[in-house]
Amino acid sequence: MATLVTGIGELTTNDPELGKLTNAALVFSGDRVVWAGAAADAPAADERVDVEGRAVLPGWVDSHTHLVFAGDRTAEFEARMAGKPYTAGGIAVTVGATRAASDEELAANLRRHVDEAAYQGTTCLETKTGYGLNVEDEARSARIAAEVADEVTFLGAHLVPPGADAESYVDLVCGDMLDAVAGQVRWADVFCETGAFDEAQTARVLKAAQERGLGLRVHGNQLGEGPGVRLAVEFGAASVDHCTYLTDNDVEALAASETVATLLPACDLSTRQPLAPARRLLDAGATVALASNANPGSSYTTSMAFCVATAVLQMRMTIDEAVWSATAGGAEALRREDVGVLSVGARADFQVLEAPSVTHLAYRPGVPLTKNVWRLGQRIR
Amino acid sequence: MATLVTGIGELTTNDPELGKLTNAALVFSGDRVVWAGAAADAPAADERVDVEGRAVLPGWVDSHTHLVFAGDRTAEFEARMAGKPYTAGGIAVTVGATRAASDEELAANLRRHVDEAAYQGTTCLETKTGYGLNVEDEARSARIAAEVADEVTFLGAHLVPPGADAESYVDLVCGDMLDAVAGQVRWADVFCETGAFDEAQTARVLKAAQERGLGLRVHGNQLGEGPGVRLAVEFGAASVDHCTYLTDNDVEALAASETVATLLPACDLSTRQPLAPARRLLDAGATVALASNANPGSSYTTSMAFCVATAVLQMRMTIDEAVWSATAGGAEALRREDVGVLSVGARADFQVLEAPSVTHLAYRPGVPLTKNVWRLGQRIR
Ligand SMILES: [Zn+2]
Ligand SMILES: [Zn+2]
Repeated sequence: MATLVTGIGELTTNDPELGKLTNAALVFSGDRVVWAGAAADAPAADERVDVEGRAVLPGWVDSHTHLVFAGDRTAEFEARMAGKPYTAGGIAVTVGATRAASDEELAANLRRHVDEAAYQGTTCLETKTGYGLNVEDEARSARIAAEVADEVTFLGAHLVPPGADAESYVDLVCGDMLDAVAGQVRWADVFCETGAFDEAQTARVLKAAQERGLGLRVHGNQLGEGPGVRLAVEFGAASVDHCTYLTDNDVEALAASETVATLLPACDLSTRQPLAPARRLLDAGATVALASNANPGSSYTTSMAFCVATAVLQMRMTIDEAVWSATAGGAEALRREDVGVLSVGARADFQVLEAPSVTHLAYRPGVPLTKNVWRLGQRIR
Repeated sequence: MATLVTGIGELTTNDPELGKLTNAALVFSGDRVVWAGAAADAPAADERVDVEGRAVLPGWVDSHTHLVFAGDRTAEFEARMAGKPYTAGGIAVTVGATRAASDEELAANLRRHVDEAAYQGTTCLETKTGYGLNVEDEARSARIAAEVADEVTFLGAHLVPPGADAESYVDLVCGDMLDAVAGQVRWADVFCETGAFDEAQTARVLKAAQERGLGLRVHGNQLGEGPGVRLAVEFGAASVDHCTYLTDNDVEALAASETVATLLPACDLSTRQPLAPARRLLDAGATVALASNANPGSSYTTSMAFCVATAVLQMRMTIDEAVWSATAGGAEALRREDVGVLSVGARADFQVLEAPSVTHLAYRPGVPLTKNVWRLGQRIR
């Protein structure tokens, strides 16, 4: 059964040939787009939905979240905002709570956040392990994530667990832990940063994951310049995420590579770091994605619209660049061609805005503009 | 009939004696709060609403909007974000469209935006004239605003209409225009800025309005240092709004006065100005309010939550300061004691968050946390 979505005031397709259309229509059948174009040329369909002049765009592709967790870190956030030191452990607090939670609790918490994101227009979501940090808890985190998320990343190399020896822990990550998660995850990731994993340790993890056939992602250059971006490019990672502090060499390396620079503006703001240099990356020719980094510590938001508004208002991305980066850019960061775009054959994942154009996502910051959401051809809002 | 709201995880009352309570309850009867305190001490009531651990706080008091308008300025916003010059007229575009619109169109547009704000938790809203700029259109703007908004401000001195002589226009504002709106408005306001009204013109308008018994507000120091803040304090204005560029003398004058400094962070961001110096003002002892400045040109948002999140993440206000400024601070800027507070006798205007604490308003930027809204004891969401 085919459904015709008509009355689209502005249709952002992200399809290089179709581009952005006014007075447009979209047809989907089952879970796929089967036609997109000018309303006047639209084919007949069994069902018809009139969006009455509103803007339609692909659902958000949120390519970076950490949502397999339990516990609360509100007090840590409050202390950070008050400029006070907070010594109660950061990620380790979440690790403790996650290990103590039942499978059902973890799954329900993940589902609740994924539903919250979907309600705001996110129709494809990656999430990571990384709050287990032992074989058993990383494996169950991967299993729970695989039941709910579109894409799952193994992040055993998130932090050396308190008390562990870093080199021995990297051995474990590269050995038993990778074995335990391999069937559940498509990606492996490393937090390459002073205080987390250094260059040699990061390279060991990336190599071991690559040998097992996993795609690679890297957390890099969040708190200062470092080897993260360079390693990501050298290993052919799909994405290097954060990119808040970049040398000119980093920018050039990204521009010359297939590695996406995934920027996390809500994290930059929530940790009072500078916003990542989106304009430098784009002007050099790098591919930029925007993601939420939803996690209970450094960026506890599922709002991709907030990321888009921030990117335009404060990072000098154009509206079209920001919308592309939060949809098709996320898809590139996940090496997917079936999401983030409204081409024939793509997933019927789209959102209708309470606005005539995507411009309003930045023009009206904070106003919840996502009005309706379809995912895989099913209306979920 | 009294209603008991119970199961309140965190109750922000803004009442100096009650403060912020955990495990709290609230009772309202008709349109007024009749009791607030610890859940264990709550009196019986006819009806009971259990908010199941969620946070409750006063509805937002948005003390600065410009919502009596027609027309669209999306293209101007797009040009500004692209760093391109845009010569098609700014405020004058809205003036043309507003004059051309019917009363019904203006009222419907205002109502739509007020409803959108209410859905996001705004239960008391000020709005201004200022897109009429002739006697007839200012008068009907005031009349339409008075039918919908809680507070109405006369802003004939928004801009010298294209082609008019500035001094003659100020004469008109101070004479026939003030006469025509006087029955509909409580406040008068002047846009005191290079390119709008200078010091002498601003003083003339403020004096004329004061002589007619109107309360005073000033748009000042938005685009650079200037006489706006000083004049506002000298005239005993209830509020001076924007305050983006302040001298030390301005800060001291505000701190020593009853004039509220109303900051408009969404406007600062939407015009790529620096964010107003909230910390300097607070540390000096000034009273700070936060408002949306909702208008189709420089700040087209109704989201007070966005203003609060920005104030905390980027202006270094604490969460409690920002929440106070967007509720009780707005009430002070409007010289009202019946809103922005959940004391006995205050309006039963409150919102329930999908969160256990107000901290989440900044911890979870962009996530639409307002779940339910009561205004004057009626549930409106
Ligand atoms: Zn991350
Ligand atoms: Zn204004």
